Amino acid sequence: MQAFTFYASDDKLANRGNESSKKYTCRGINDAACRLAKEVAEEGDALVAGGLSQTPTYLSGLGKVHTQKEFQKQVDVFVENKVDFLIVEYFEHVEEIEWAIEVCLKMGKAVVASMCIGPEGDLHGVPVGECAVRMAKAGAHVVGINCHFDPFVCLDALRKMKAALDAAGLKVHLISQPLAFHTPDAHKQGFIDLPEFPFALEPRICTRWDMHKYAREAYKLGVRYIGGCCGFEPYHTRALAEELAVERGGLPKASEKHELWSAGLRMHTKPWIRARANRSYWETLKPSSGRPFCASLSQPDDWGVTAGDASLKQKTDATTDEEIAELNQHAVNGP
Amino acid sequence: MQAFTFYASDDKLANRGNESSKKYTCRGINDAACRLAKEVAEEGDALVAGGLSQTPTYLSGLGKVHTQKEFQKQVDVFVENKVDFLIVEYFEHVEEIEWAIEVCLKMGKAVVASMCIGPEGDLHGVPVGECAVRMAKAGAHVVGINCHFDPFVCLDALRKMKAALDAAGLKVHLISQPLAFHTPDAHKQGFIDLPEFPFALEPRICTRWDMHKYAREAYKLGVRYIGGCCGFEPYHTRALAEELAVERGGLPKASEKHELWSAGLRMHTKPWIRARANRSYWETLKPSSGRPFCASLSQPDDWGVTAGDASLKQKTDATTDEEIAELNQHAVNGP
Amino acid sequence: MQAFTFYASDDKLANRGNESSKKYTCRGINDAACRLAKEVAEEGDALVAGGLSQTPTYLSGLGKVHTQKEFQKQVDVFVENKVDFLIVEYFEHVEEIEWAIEVCLKMGKAVVASMCIGPEGDLHGVPVGECAVRMAKAGAHVVGINCHFDPFVCLDALRKMKAALDAAGLKVHLISQPLAFHTPDAHKQGFIDLPEFPFALEPRICTRWDMHKYAREAYKLGVRYIGGCCGFEPYHTRALAEELAVERGGLPKASEKHELWSAGLRMHTKPWIRARANRSYWETLKPSSGRPFCASLSQPDDWGVTAGDASLKQKTDATTDEEIAELNQHAVNGP
Amino acid sequence: MQAFTFYASDDKLANRGNESSKKYTCRGINDAACRLAKEVAEEGDALVAGGLSQTPTYLSGLGKVHTQKEFQKQVDVFVENKVDFLIVEYFEHVEEIEWAIEVCLKMGKAVVASMCIGPEGDLHGVPVGECAVRMAKAGAHVVGINCHFDPFVCLDALRKMKAALDAAGLKVHLISQPLAFHTPDAHKQGFIDLPEFPFALEPRICTRWDMHKYAREAYKLGVRYIGGCCGFEPYHTRALAEELAVERGGLPKASEKHELWSAGLRMHTKPWIRARANRSYWETLKPSSGRPFCASLSQPDDWGVTAGDASLKQKTDATTDEEIAELNQHAVNGP
Repeated sequence: MQAFTFYASDDKLANRGNESSKKYTCRGINDAACRLAKEVAEEGDALVAGGLSQTPTYLSGLGKVHTQKEFQKQVDVFVENKVDFLIVEYFEHVEEIEWAIEVCLKMGKAVVASMCIGPEGDLHGVPVGECAVRMAKAGAHVVGINCHFDPFVCLDALRKMKAALDAAGLKVHLISQPLAFHTPDAHKQGFIDLPEFPFALEPRICTRWDMHKYAREAYKLGVRYIGGCCGFEPYHTRALAEELAVERGGLPKASEKHELWSAGLRMHTKPWIRARANRSYWETLKPSSGRPFCASLSQPDDWGVTAGDASLKQKTDATTDEEIAELNQHAVNGP
Repeated sequence: MQAFTFYASDDKLANRGNESSKKYTCRGINDAACRLAKEVAEEGDALVAGGLSQTPTYLSGLGKVHTQKEFQKQVDVFVENKVDFLIVEYFEHVEEIEWAIEVCLKMGKAVVASMCIGPEGDLHGVPVGECAVRMAKAGAHVVGINCHFDPFVCLDALRKMKAALDAAGLKVHLISQPLAFHTPDAHKQGFIDLPEFPFALEPRICTRWDMHKYAREAYKLGVRYIGGCCGFEPYHTRALAEELAVERGGLPKASEKHELWSAGLRMHTKPWIRARANRSYWETLKPSSGRPFCASLSQPDDWGVTAGDASLKQKTDATTDEEIAELNQHAVNGP
Repeated sequence: MQAFTFYASDDKLANRGNESSKKYTCRGINDAACRLAKEVAEEGDALVAGGLSQTPTYLSGLGKVHTQKEFQKQVDVFVENKVDFLIVEYFEHVEEIEWAIEVCLKMGKAVVASMCIGPEGDLHGVPVGECAVRMAKAGAHVVGINCHFDPFVCLDALRKMKAALDAAGLKVHLISQPLAFHTPDAHKQGFIDLPEFPFALEPRICTRWDMHKYAREAYKLGVRYIGGCCGFEPYHTRALAEELAVERGGLPKASEKHELWSAGLRMHTKPWIRARANRSYWETLKPSSGRPFCASLSQPDDWGVTAGDASLKQKTDATTDEEIAELNQHAVNGP
Repeated sequence: MQAFTFYASDDKLANRGNESSKKYTCRGINDAACRLAKEVAEEGDALVAGGLSQTPTYLSGLGKVHTQKEFQKQVDVFVENKVDFLIVEYFEHVEEIEWAIEVCLKMGKAVVASMCIGPEGDLHGVPVGECAVRMAKAGAHVVGINCHFDPFVCLDALRKMKAALDAAGLKVHLISQPLAFHTPDAHKQGFIDLPEFPFALEPRICTRWDMHKYAREAYKLGVRYIGGCCGFEPYHTRALAEELAVERGGLPKASEKHELWSAGLRMHTKPWIRARANRSYWETLKPSSGRPFCASLSQPDDWGVTAGDASLKQKTDATTDEEIAELNQHAVNGP
């Protein structure tokens, strides 16, 4: 059970007009998240994790001391709440995640480290395999990838991570938590840059059959922490668990309400729908979009800037209309 | 607040291996649904409705007496629970919905009547305008369309309904409750026939911007009972209410957690995402599917059979593997 | 053998900066075309036809006398050249083609009459079936459709023509000469309105397998003058003749250089290409566009104006840059 | 003026039922091609080239002596006909093209060498840059790429060739002769493997605007022998010449019959078509396919075998029906 502390560092809660830092405080939000997670975890016997993610401080180029200070504020709350382990996730720069891992290890916690990068590596140009090696060498117990790309692009990147870890003789577990959106057209910075992000991603949503395929491929690759990120609905996660029912020693509880491999269609009124009550129908179907006036791929924004670039300096003031107008000019004409 | 009594007639609950009729009984399910709906409705001041839908009895050609007996069993429970009004919905044949309206009116309830048909009319070939006229003449207080087609196809059908009602001098309210899936390629029987139904419809899911457009067009057409059916998520419904904020006299409660017209993007870390914080960006975007190996339109199954056809006789036995195999042959080779 | 006299009326040759009327004269061009056609026809034993098409005079609303005068100038040349029959084709208004048929019949020639319309009828709203009946009643010996739509949309329109002719008890032959471009998205005015017209139609080009299918369907419908219009390449026409080899009593001469039904692939170096040497492979293939950033359908221009509208008054002056700029405004903003 | 001697080696003319070797002989065909080319070249002052391409002998693994013997038979004819230079093109293996270059140089002719490979390199896994270096070191005066990929994929490969040549300090001219078909989905072996090859490539055909873009990009990259291969129509080649009119010192003769940058549309009858008489309209248009039931990308066959594999041994017998059936099994089920 992961406490919902994503992007809950103090600097992020005070960024661009966000009043949460003042209204609720970093400590207040992280503490509430831990308590909620523990409450639910105790309904069963789940472990509880606190989580860190990348910071505006790093993106603005303020350096290691300031960045680690932001992490420390959150980790202090996690330790007070006696979480079982820590997750450092959604980092675009391996340097920053190393700093995060360092803070976590100092507090004596096991660490899962996962970056939001793809096969092209981190935003400073560090290859994806090298990112894995550096996370492992920094002391992370599990390393891998979350967010930014679809399951199959993520697995491409994990394949490179595994090869580099093997070559370096490093033994750590692997984690994959991809999007539930198809992103074959995303470049280095992932789905953030796609024109559909974040309010028109619907045509890209994965089917449960995509998830079956993803679970099987991830398992074969050796990934043992198999999950999902943005866009995952409960039925997607259930599909992962159903695909791996044998390996996991049984079906998940959610399968009680659900006939496996579309068998529920056997009760359908129309005979041609009953004919679809078989797994191979769904596995070979290529679903249509119903959108004949839309293309299949988009051109990502690709501004190509990252930590260190002036345009990425974060600030506490709310964005003005003039700034939006200026950005739109840039978006149309380039820099 | 509509009680969840869809397809909860006794014959449907005992169809093709469904054990609900025996295990929970028609009365039990309809009664529980009414009580749940009332409980929630009392949190505010919502009206409560019970609902009827089409029956296997009709589809099997067993006639008016038997079909109305199925309706009566449900309506008795609705009356005992003192629901405020009745909804007869998801009918493919105007003859059957007339019979349903008759049962409801006898019990003294106001009736909303809505068919799951499109611009091509009902499955027996009755034009969509004539269906509206017949529902109104049967005594329904609100008539219209639900399910089976996307918002814009539904509005095309409603335009024909309105024209026919006007021509007949009939004054009733209109209801539209379309799918949240794009279905430009569906024929008479709607999305049921699309190869993606029901487990691979994801690429067809409407965006919130589609819903804004739908709400506006429906309102302009004169529809005043504007909602949604399969595929609608809470954010879709919120988009309807936000589009019509002025007409409704204010924003819905759910908008408290939501910046209007994508204004929340003003806080985004990346400048090119902040540039998208404006409504016109989203209204003109044609979202890509991320599925370059899929087509945009599908060929529906189009078996072209309906009530009266032998292949549609319903039965209580569970579907066998042999029957599935036979249906698959038919699906590939035609009848 | 049809003389190339398309759009070679005097008013057209002097329209919007066209200097052909002055430089070569209407008589000169039509006469040269007839002589060329006869020369080639005499290589075998082909018939020779002269052709008329719609006029700027009609479009500018100048009436029957002026319009028929334009036709007469061309027909005089055809008669002097003793062509075997006349083709009046590419008319968007049935009224104008009736006037053309009248001029031709007066000169004692057999007439083939074909309009560039689709299932939605002529541009003044006359239904397609009624157009056929009016052409037949005007005395045309063959009636049908050419240009503006793809083979399958044309056949849809011809089906309506045939039904109307049958209902009226009229016996004439049918002609179909569709485009070799797919146009499912074109509205009343056909491919002219598609954004790709005329310099980016490549992705819409029909395959030879489309042509086989078209030839078979046209033949079944009863069409006996089966040909093609814009976009047809010799291999498309050969495919028509090959499909109907049995009905025509043999293969066309061009098949000497061509193995039937892709049998030539049996000689291919790569085994997986030899595997494609069978007709069913090609008939079931759905060819991809290789253009993932393009949609499958376009939004036609649909200005919705026709003969009688001021914007369609033709003139002899060349179009100015200012006029182009103004038109572009209109194209973007609407009228 | 290139003599049409493509695939006219003796072993190819006798492969899989081809009777040309016996009926016309290698010498007869190559000689006739040279004479035709010279005849046409003398109408102006064009140079004449003879061409060699890859051989079944090499593919069947018969070694250098046998392969060069095949080349020698053709080159002897070219020398007798006093062609100005030689083109060795359409080679998938750099080793074979080195052998071809060697034969040509021995006869004292200047040599243009071009492989049908893409960014992934030759079929034995030699990187594309290394292929360029080896061709240059073997003595070719011009090196580059023809066929198998679209203009933009070819330029990607040429970029790698240029970088490798520069790194090796080699100075040779570059040639590009891509397909006129879009092939973003083709893998190592190019369009041969696409399911649409060779009889359903129509939706992939490039527009003239694609060609303008290709010509400009090729020129900028430093390519000076800019042409085209399969799928190029005269209007495509004219577009290359028009784009580079300034660099070439004038327009090509074919532009006499053609208004530049769509200016001919200024004479069009319909005002909305006159509005398209500007280059930027066409350069930004993303043309639709008119094929909503087709995908944008295909899955190539990818058998992944090449010279040395048993399945590629060539033979003189015609392919039997049994062999075709067996290949189809393989195509469906894999090896």
